[in-house]
Amino acid sequence: MIYSLLIEDVVRRALREDVGTGDVTTLATVPADIRARANIVAKGTGVVAGLPVLEEVFRQVSPDIKIKFIREDGAWVRPGDILCEIEGWARAILTGERVALNFIQLLSGVATRTASFVELVAGSGARIVDTRKTTPGLRLIEKYAVTVGGGRNHRMALDDAVMIKDNHIVAAGGIAAAVKRARNAVPHTMTITVECETLEQVDEALIAGADVLLLDNMDNETRAEGVRRAKGKALTEASGSITEETAAEIAATGVDILSVGALTHSSKALDISLDIIETYQDLS
Amino acid sequence: MIYSLLIEDVVRRALREDVGTGDVTTLATVPADIRARANIVAKGTGVVAGLPVLEEVFRQVSPDIKIKFIREDGAWVRPGDILCEIEGWARAILTGERVALNFIQLLSGVATRTASFVELVAGSGARIVDTRKTTPGLRLIEKYAVTVGGGRNHRMALDDAVMIKDNHIVAAGGIAAAVKRARNAVPHTMTITVECETLEQVDEALIAGADVLLLDNMDNETRAEGVRRAKGKALTEASGSITEETAAEIAATGVDILSVGALTHSSKALDISLDIIETYQDLS
Amino acid sequence: MIYSLLIEDVVRRALREDVGTGDVTTLATVPADIRARANIVAKGTGVVAGLPVLEEVFRQVSPDIKIKFIREDGAWVRPGDILCEIEGWARAILTGERVALNFIQLLSGVATRTASFVELVAGSGARIVDTRKTTPGLRLIEKYAVTVGGGRNHRMALDDAVMIKDNHIVAAGGIAAAVKRARNAVPHTMTITVECETLEQVDEALIAGADVLLLDNMDNETRAEGVRRAKGKALTEASGSITEETAAEIAATGVDILSVGALTHSSKALDISLDIIETYQDLS
Amino acid sequence: MIYSLLIEDVVRRALREDVGTGDVTTLATVPADIRARANIVAKGTGVVAGLPVLEEVFRQVSPDIKIKFIREDGAWVRPGDILCEIEGWARAILTGERVALNFIQLLSGVATRTASFVELVAGSGARIVDTRKTTPGLRLIEKYAVTVGGGRNHRMALDDAVMIKDNHIVAAGGIAAAVKRARNAVPHTMTITVECETLEQVDEALIAGADVLLLDNMDNETRAEGVRRAKGKALTEASGSITEETAAEIAATGVDILSVGALTHSSKALDISLDIIETYQDLS
Amino acid sequence: MIYSLLIEDVVRRALREDVGTGDVTTLATVPADIRARANIVAKGTGVVAGLPVLEEVFRQVSPDIKIKFIREDGAWVRPGDILCEIEGWARAILTGERVALNFIQLLSGVATRTASFVELVAGSGARIVDTRKTTPGLRLIEKYAVTVGGGRNHRMALDDAVMIKDNHIVAAGGIAAAVKRARNAVPHTMTITVECETLEQVDEALIAGADVLLLDNMDNETRAEGVRRAKGKALTEASGSITEETAAEIAATGVDILSVGALTHSSKALDISLDIIETYQDLS
Amino acid sequence: MIYSLLIEDVVRRALREDVGTGDVTTLATVPADIRARANIVAKGTGVVAGLPVLEEVFRQVSPDIKIKFIREDGAWVRPGDILCEIEGWARAILTGERVALNFIQLLSGVATRTASFVELVAGSGARIVDTRKTTPGLRLIEKYAVTVGGGRNHRMALDDAVMIKDNHIVAAGGIAAAVKRARNAVPHTMTITVECETLEQVDEALIAGADVLLLDNMDNETRAEGVRRAKGKALTEASGSITEETAAEIAATGVDILSVGALTHSSKALDISLDIIETYQDLS
Repeated sequence: MIYSLLIEDVVRRALREDVGTGDVTTLATVPADIRARANIVAKGTGVVAGLPVLEEVFRQVSPDIKIKFIREDGAWVRPGDILCEIEGWARAILTGERVALNFIQLLSGVATRTASFVELVAGSGARIVDTRKTTPGLRLIEKYAVTVGGGRNHRMALDDAVMIKDNHIVAAGGIAAAVKRARNAVPHTMTITVECETLEQVDEALIAGADVLLLDNMDNETRAEGVRRAKGKALTEASGSITEETAAEIAATGVDILSVGALTHSSKALDISLDIIETYQDLS
Repeated sequence: MIYSLLIEDVVRRALREDVGTGDVTTLATVPADIRARANIVAKGTGVVAGLPVLEEVFRQVSPDIKIKFIREDGAWVRPGDILCEIEGWARAILTGERVALNFIQLLSGVATRTASFVELVAGSGARIVDTRKTTPGLRLIEKYAVTVGGGRNHRMALDDAVMIKDNHIVAAGGIAAAVKRARNAVPHTMTITVECETLEQVDEALIAGADVLLLDNMDNETRAEGVRRAKGKALTEASGSITEETAAEIAATGVDILSVGALTHSSKALDISLDIIETYQDLS
Repeated sequence: MIYSLLIEDVVRRALREDVGTGDVTTLATVPADIRARANIVAKGTGVVAGLPVLEEVFRQVSPDIKIKFIREDGAWVRPGDILCEIEGWARAILTGERVALNFIQLLSGVATRTASFVELVAGSGARIVDTRKTTPGLRLIEKYAVTVGGGRNHRMALDDAVMIKDNHIVAAGGIAAAVKRARNAVPHTMTITVECETLEQVDEALIAGADVLLLDNMDNETRAEGVRRAKGKALTEASGSITEETAAEIAATGVDILSVGALTHSSKALDISLDIIETYQDLS
Repeated sequence: MIYSLLIEDVVRRALREDVGTGDVTTLATVPADIRARANIVAKGTGVVAGLPVLEEVFRQVSPDIKIKFIREDGAWVRPGDILCEIEGWARAILTGERVALNFIQLLSGVATRTASFVELVAGSGARIVDTRKTTPGLRLIEKYAVTVGGGRNHRMALDDAVMIKDNHIVAAGGIAAAVKRARNAVPHTMTITVECETLEQVDEALIAGADVLLLDNMDNETRAEGVRRAKGKALTEASGSITEETAAEIAATGVDILSVGALTHSSKALDISLDIIETYQDLS
Repeated sequence: MIYSLLIEDVVRRALREDVGTGDVTTLATVPADIRARANIVAKGTGVVAGLPVLEEVFRQVSPDIKIKFIREDGAWVRPGDILCEIEGWARAILTGERVALNFIQLLSGVATRTASFVELVAGSGARIVDTRKTTPGLRLIEKYAVTVGGGRNHRMALDDAVMIKDNHIVAAGGIAAAVKRARNAVPHTMTITVECETLEQVDEALIAGADVLLLDNMDNETRAEGVRRAKGKALTEASGSITEETAAEIAATGVDILSVGALTHSSKALDISLDIIETYQDLS
Repeated sequence: MIYSLLIEDVVRRALREDVGTGDVTTLATVPADIRARANIVAKGTGVVAGLPVLEEVFRQVSPDIKIKFIREDGAWVRPGDILCEIEGWARAILTGERVALNFIQLLSGVATRTASFVELVAGSGARIVDTRKTTPGLRLIEKYAVTVGGGRNHRMALDDAVMIKDNHIVAAGGIAAAVKRARNAVPHTMTITVECETLEQVDEALIAGADVLLLDNMDNETRAEGVRRAKGKALTEASGSITEETAAEIAATGVDILSVGALTHSSKALDISLDIIETYQDLS
């Protein structure tokens, strides 16, 4: 519902960027009375995400365009799978094509990468979450793509949860002081996460009443001990350059959460194309 | 100069997205009178791009921040290399950190990928150019990063050059008709590119007076023949899923231009971090 | 620091609204080379809040204006107290006057009302917090004024914490189901508040693992029992038409939090004026 | 008609402020296919104002919502009176509820306060008008609420009428000079108001050709004499901290206009709530 | 002072429109370290207007640019006259040139046309005023240019004065009814103008208490009679396709005001150019 | 299609500028339930341009308005010709009237002027194109009006083609160097125009590979020789204060293009009015 307000902005910006003062090629070569049918088709294998964004792109280019969804966000697709069918003015379809594909390829890439991590930790009870390492301007839709891929979201921004890192600890004069200052300043509805690099810090953070412990830069043995100490008192989160190679092992330490920057900062676009099926003159 | 106007917008949007109503952690834990010195340090190997964007991020967070550049955009860096030194209020540095890094990691990733392609075709005379497959909202700075990596830019948007693809050809009733319509509609300052999938189309496009031939979906032998026919009459461009594996061979066909979507839609972020070196109270 | 970005917007909007295409009276009657000194003076008794907003108003009208603060946000002032001294072009001071006063009168009204509630519950251990019943468009600065008055903030918006009310409970099929759905959907960094109207609901919410119980529509005896049951398991919050008459008694039930809509929806502006002390021609 | 353009902006801003990236509670607990019927119900006594703004709020949240108005702006309502009935998706109604109520409570508060002043001066021939002491960002709708309450509007902003106050008089070198300068500078369609604190100033302003005299800081006897002198030559306006206690007496002096800042800067919100009547699953 | 806020917007829009993603020619051919001195020079004869807008253009392109004004807005200039001297980075001066000239040529054209009308009615006591027939988006600065040319402004927009035309009269059921409705609806600070096409309407409008009579579509003899009847009771305004040929005669009827749409909708740009005097490398 | 996005902005800005907080006259005098039929009628002779913009104006004022087009953009009209018929709420039609007319009068003026130039060079083979000397903020629609009048467009902005002028040549160290720098910096899809003031420069530019030669400040004999030398190698463009008096002779030199600033900076508005045909009460 209200999400659409935010998608509207990001799509409008993308269209202005790509279309500028007009798609000169299409306006010059395609008569105004030609209609077209087209399919959005997967060319690679992965989890599709972003169909509502694609729909918004075409809606903004031409309210007249009709889209029939064959697959929905979250579906696994293989090369050749049709994601949706589009019908409308040929000019509008050609003009919106690139922006629509840029969005859905990016978001499907994020969802696919997320699904791969989720599978790697399946059975461990750990959840895969995103980070703030998102593409500037696209955080909301990238975080949406993470959920489509089976992941969960971390905080959205600097304003909705406390995360005390080493520099904050130093500036505040220790973990206890930092947590206390934060608890006294922020709404009672906010949680506090404390980054811990040693087991001593784990103990300090637990005594200080942290809600979540970020177990960073630890070997997995130490991390497992940290998890043990926190059990029942705080959630535990592992972070820091987690890769497909290391995810399963880290999950095996019993941490509740693996936050993975690579979901959003280094995903590969899923190849998806728009194929024109038919064009015809509208004689009406 | 005027570029800054556009960077300003994209940076402001990113800061609003990440900071929201305020960095609650930093405001609660770091006193207002603490200053800090920090370094931006490479953690991976690649071509750095985006230092002016990073500078704009910190300028918007706090006009007081001073940045001393040690390396410049275009420099190859290795793990441990310091890119720049930052000095200012600790709160401002911590609040701007993530957004600044998100930009520079993304852009350095694009520049690094570009440099790799440029190296692969070195000596062939072909240029590596980008496409419109850019991240929505970030086209201008991503295209800038391509030039930093030694690549060149293709058209910026749908409004600044004609590119006639298969669907336009069908709609216009052939290559000759499409080129003629376009030439009659667009400013005399615009060039016309025609996508050719066969040598017959190459001949048609040359007769029609195309400025650039996009030799798509051809084996390299056919492409080389297309290049030969176009020599002295039109530029030639190869396109379509060009990879590190295929670039050199394609360049060897003699095409003038290789346009590579992967430069911008599937680059891996270059790992870069912000390390606080020192904090101290400002007693003034 | 980054707060200024948000204040900038709200102030710009207010100035556009009040100044429109220009302050015709001042432009017509006050020569451009007249400078003035003025004081911002309290005409009523209360807690001053909003001096940084007032400063931003004058900064936007004329960067040249100098302001010397005599009192700071949070100070109790009485009629005649000077809050700050202003020096600059007479035209700018007169043009910015009304908007500056509108802000500071409103915000000081909020801070004063808050301080009054805080005093009423002093010693009880309960904190006074605001609600989402703020003036549309001014939430952030009104919530700031609440903290200036000694209050604390509740969640900022619908996106930063879960608050399950009766309609959500009904729709989800009970408290347990609602909490479970929410826990599975939102980031692990978010807390969940559940509105309880009976002690049965208190028990259900505690079993479901709610972080905060909103004890609404209860007599104080029942509320005290709810607090007793929640002790050590969840925070407790009283809400709903809390007035100066009822606040102390409610606080005596032991609740951790009293959320008071009246802080922001029904405060009386604190009377504050701008007095021109001197005008003189700038002969330079 | 065009008013809607302005209401749109102010409502959009309020929704962005309150909903942020999404109503996490409702999205998590209320299924997408649940519809609801709700009533907007008065909990206090007063003049309702702002129903079109409430309608715009729900329209922006979900174009699908239907509203049936039972009362209209300007109606006196008592606790229990239904103002309108709402039908639509449950999620949309719950998400828009707070913003809709914030607007209508504020505006009804203004209208109610205005009606009270209007009643106090009934029969005197004087009109109650607002001032520029409005809530920053909401001037237009607050001034609308004043008219709903039976009051009239003063100038909208600094750009649509001349109002010469003491500082302008000093800067221009007297009333005559100030009026002359203004008459020579502003469009012939603008009127000139002069603030007079003594009867000498009244005479000067009348000779200078002022259209309206603002009789400020005068006892009522002097004010009555000022009114007598101005009769047939200029309108007279009383201003300055007019309260419910003093309004009738001031009106009895014969002034044409009482401008009352309290209408907008210190009104108490009228208590109004949204009650869900029924929810049901949409099986279509 | 606050005017600058509005000029800022209109200039930013113009720069975005003309510079787009960058001045590719200048960036490619002019090294970054070249500075230049340039003059703004009149190539035609007329009244210069818009120097502050020109200054804002260059300020936005590069804050470093220095401008020394030789002439000021309102000065009559002849071919060869230097209006101002500019010094700064060569790139910035070349990039801002066209937008700066577009503004100053347009505004000087308006001022010059105005001055010509003012001269034609000199001695008659009538004032030349503008209309709402301004260039969309540029009303404020065009109305400013009218004052620079010695003209005066009419109302700024539909919201700051009442002007009752034939269609309003018909809809309201006559002049008396229309004036009464308006008087009862608008602030007491607004004046009412009534369009009169016959002497009967003049009498009606005077009885109804109109502040200004718009004597439209009358021969000058009738208009003079209308002026006579209105004398001392209302201002009189002539309107409707007033040209340089007819202005003096119309003024001779004794009307107070001639409103001339041609000032803004059909002025010829004054020819003004930017001449580079010198360029040099900045070795610092 | 996407053009509408840009027209939307420019129309919204114009409406805000003209309507402000509301059309006070119409709201006061015209009842809400009156409907009207009106015609848009030519009062002068020329080429009509801007009907889609007029349509957008009324659409924004009231989505309910119906417009039936009698003539289309590009039609020659004479006094009395009806361009379109409008039906809708009387208030909306009266409120939108001025803005709609301001647009269509301006754009029809541009189209008419263009048509006059096109006719003057008919048969010569030369095309009439516009320049960047457009009204700030209206470039896109003015350039559209040029095409409606039979002209063609030059580059849209500084970012879509290279145009090397004297200052660029000096800064780069000669034509050859300037062209080379530009060719190496800009996309291969961009053309390069070089301004030539002598035949030597023509030769240099041709050798350097310029795509277009701008033959400026030449007598027609020299220009004709320039054209001869460029034939088959580059397009030729004449520029610089081309008037109706000189256009035909310049075209006779054989240049391909005449770029005429006067099309957009000095056109006279075409007189067009809105006539109310009928008003009636809507009893539904």
